[in-house]
Amino acid sequence: MVRSAVLFKLRSGTTQEQINAITSAVQALHIPGLVSMTFGPDLGLREGNMSFAFVVDFEDEPAFRAYDADEHHNHIRRDLIAPVAERIERCQFQI
Amino acid sequence: MVRSAVLFKLRSGTTQEQINAITSAVQALHIPGLVSMTFGPDLGLREGNMSFAFVVDFEDEPAFRAYDADEHHNHIRRDLIAPVAERIERCQFQI
Repeated sequence: MVRSAVLFKLRSGTTQEQINAITSAVQALHIPGLVSMTFGPDLGLREGNMSFAFVVDFEDEPAFRAYDADEHHNHIRRDLIAPVAERIERCQFQI
Repeated sequence: MVRSAVLFKLRSGTTQEQINAITSAVQALHIPGLVSMTFGPDLGLREGNMSFAFVVDFEDEPAFRAYDADEHHNHIRRDLIAPVAERIERCQFQI
């Protein structure tokens, strides 16, 4: 399986509604081979953390590539994530 | 449960032996309430990614705090991770 971990630093002033719009839209994506998705805001247990994380598991690399290239996903990135994300860090690894 | 996602940008020249020393040492930590641990190098599926990820799950916040404050963990950070990590990004979230 491929695990994708994506961390966001959100701009100050980002609202809960903007975050909810992102998570709802990502959850609504239909990607064959997407096995599980977890996400949430940083719990504030350490200083200097990123603001929000997604960890998404895929059956294999083609499933991740389909998610990465998905047209609706790209709309979400452009219309919902880009306006609120100051910085995004990513890593995909085998599990 | 608390999921901790930590992404590393490793310095160029970091060896597989240095990475193995880190993962072996982290796996050897004895932390009650540490439920599962996944890690691995970035698969190169996207440009600009971080180099390496750990995603570690804990029963609850006290278990994460024990891991975070663990003396051996701090030795690993100082002696094994700091010499090879150019940048580290973190997020802990509820799952």
